[in-house]
Amino acid sequence: MKISSEIQDSLELKFSRLAQQKNNEGEKMISLGLGEPGFQTPIAIIDAAEKAMRDGRTRYSDPLGIKSLREKIARKLNDENCINANADAILVSPGSKMALSLALGAILKPGDECIVMMPCYPSYLPQIKIAEPDAVIRQVNLDKENFKIDLEYLRSIICKKTRVILLNFPNNPTGRMLHSREFNDLCEVLSEHDMIIISDEIYEKLNHSGVPHLSFGSQSILKDRVITINGFSKAYSMTGWRIGYLHVPNKSILKITSRLQQHLNTNTATFIQHAALAALDLPNANIENYNKTLKENSSSLEYLVSKSPEVRMGSSEGGLFAFMNIKATGLTSDDFASRLLVEQGVALTPGVQFGQDWDDHVRVSLAIDNKNFQEGIARINKFLIRNREVK
Amino acid sequence: MKISSEIQDSLELKFSRLAQQKNNEGEKMISLGLGEPGFQTPIAIIDAAEKAMRDGRTRYSDPLGIKSLREKIARKLNDENCINANADAILVSPGSKMALSLALGAILKPGDECIVMMPCYPSYLPQIKIAEPDAVIRQVNLDKENFKIDLEYLRSIICKKTRVILLNFPNNPTGRMLHSREFNDLCEVLSEHDMIIISDEIYEKLNHSGVPHLSFGSQSILKDRVITINGFSKAYSMTGWRIGYLHVPNKSILKITSRLQQHLNTNTATFIQHAALAALDLPNANIENYNKTLKENSSSLEYLVSKSPEVRMGSSEGGLFAFMNIKATGLTSDDFASRLLVEQGVALTPGVQFGQDWDDHVRVSLAIDNKNFQEGIARINKFLIRNREVK
Repeated sequence: MKISSEIQDSLELKFSRLAQQKNNEGEKMISLGLGEPGFQTPIAIIDAAEKAMRDGRTRYSDPLGIKSLREKIARKLNDENCINANADAILVSPGSKMALSLALGAILKPGDECIVMMPCYPSYLPQIKIAEPDAVIRQVNLDKENFKIDLEYLRSIICKKTRVILLNFPNNPTGRMLHSREFNDLCEVLSEHDMIIISDEIYEKLNHSGVPHLSFGSQSILKDRVITINGFSKAYSMTGWRIGYLHVPNKSILKITSRLQQHLNTNTATFIQHAALAALDLPNANIENYNKTLKENSSSLEYLVSKSPEVRMGSSEGGLFAFMNIKATGLTSDDFASRLLVEQGVALTPGVQFGQDWDDHVRVSLAIDNKNFQEGIARINKFLIRNREVK
Repeated sequence: MKISSEIQDSLELKFSRLAQQKNNEGEKMISLGLGEPGFQTPIAIIDAAEKAMRDGRTRYSDPLGIKSLREKIARKLNDENCINANADAILVSPGSKMALSLALGAILKPGDECIVMMPCYPSYLPQIKIAEPDAVIRQVNLDKENFKIDLEYLRSIICKKTRVILLNFPNNPTGRMLHSREFNDLCEVLSEHDMIIISDEIYEKLNHSGVPHLSFGSQSILKDRVITINGFSKAYSMTGWRIGYLHVPNKSILKITSRLQQHLNTNTATFIQHAALAALDLPNANIENYNKTLKENSSSLEYLVSKSPEVRMGSSEGGLFAFMNIKATGLTSDDFASRLLVEQGVALTPGVQFGQDWDDHVRVSLAIDNKNFQEGIARINKFLIRNREVK
């Protein structure tokens, strides 16, 4: 394929790796870099995977995924997300990242425009260019202070060529969720055009604010134009298992998505699909404890921000992250992250990795235990104070 | 992406599914359709996967794959294939099909020509068009009688635009292996040009003829232009596990391949990589018993062919398949397969699925136990006799 400049190494890993390396060298590092939940995969899921392997669920499956899993996912989407989903419109993929790639590959044609809210997950732009090198990416910046969407601006850039809008709430990296009013206003804008809405809801269950999660696929006003993407990585700490899914109500898109799956992946590992079945049977209480950890960490970070004149932050409500404005430090995000790592042994992710215009932010992962997070915060505080003194 | 006409559903599954359905309805069907080994995944591999899951190997891994697995694969390639491989040039992918897609995506640019030997695995042509919709596929037919490569013809179509040649020995669907003389002659032709040679060696260990398997990557005359693809599905009956790998000695191609992996797959499921480590520790004796089954089945089929005037067959030496010439039956391959399924309850795969010019062949899988295979043969014999009488 034509390899465009967007297709670079995923830099998100760089700082976490450096931190890991320093850790191995005996220095105590605190990694606030990666997007992995801090808890282990629940044992019931591991037990189910083991049983399936020993029962011989080690052969090819239906390319779309085993029927029982697709049925249970459809039920989940109906019950929890008010999406009128049918098992035959679900495709189980090796990761939700792959789910997005399959959808983009099936939809985008040369010259099509794809709208992306910035800052965004670092793989979105490369994924669009891998799916269609001649697609045009239209970036829409969220508001710098509160991460809201400028709906008038959005409306102004939607045109005949707009084929896809890619949405991700709870949002990585900002931690923003859409509140009901903003959600409805956005749906109205989206309903005025016939583009496909891809809604990546991978952080749905990581919600430490209590703001209800709203799914675009539930809105009849958007008809059958919403592709919902989700997975098991974040809600069940299954990042290394590589399993996600997409719901594609549009039959002609589903057909192409299914063909791409057949020729790229054959199917998702069969016994891992059986493990995912067990995941969907787990009570939500499992995740509620974890959300408490995220909430406490978020509050600690907010307290630090409130005390520190040179940082600001829109509030984090869901997902694993908070996105901190460091403009007043006078440092670029890469300098901030590099120096913080060297001087204080804390890894976080430079904002520039989530968009060119976001070099005045850094992303902080809330995903570690409170004690280590507190220490991380204390070190960031020291770093800010020293930086203030030097200035 | 531009979806070209090559990107269709994988029809290989169609007949096996029909057979499964009839089986479920109580009719005894014999499936000689799919490419799955008949034995179960060895228990040591399942044990290793379980241990890894319970040890917490459930998180992201290095995108290229865990270092210990890449080191062991490199050692295997050195020891068994005489390929001067280094762990840092290995990428572990979710399936060898994905390995091929990553390589093609990294290499092919619009207008590039890609040479494919026909008949070929049904996903090859769609995979090329998914990787680069504007690539040009040059099909080279193997000889209809003995499945040999016409080297003069091959030489004549190689040109400045030739960027990739895709080779697959032991071959699916013909069962052909390259003998040393033909291998050397082919290497000489390949050495005259600077195209990339992708060698899909997934059937390497399924070798019921004793003909030694030869790897293009071992040939210094081809320098660093050989990408070797292999996996665990066929040798260890891990089809449903989705794990394969590629060795890419060319650093600039490896870099792009690695980026595609990061943005499409993140990594291959982590504990499955640990299971693959255990697979590489298994003695080859494991597979030798199975090769005996394949050999017996191959001999039974050859005996049937020798008795039946309307079928012919080039000999199967490796892999899971034999490819039978049915031209003298007067039936198309789809008619042959459909009628055989309805009249005698035997599923096999129409030759036309492996290439337009191969509608006078059917593919027979040797991968089931001898008793059922014998019954399949007896039914095919009945079918041939009846067809003869009707004519």
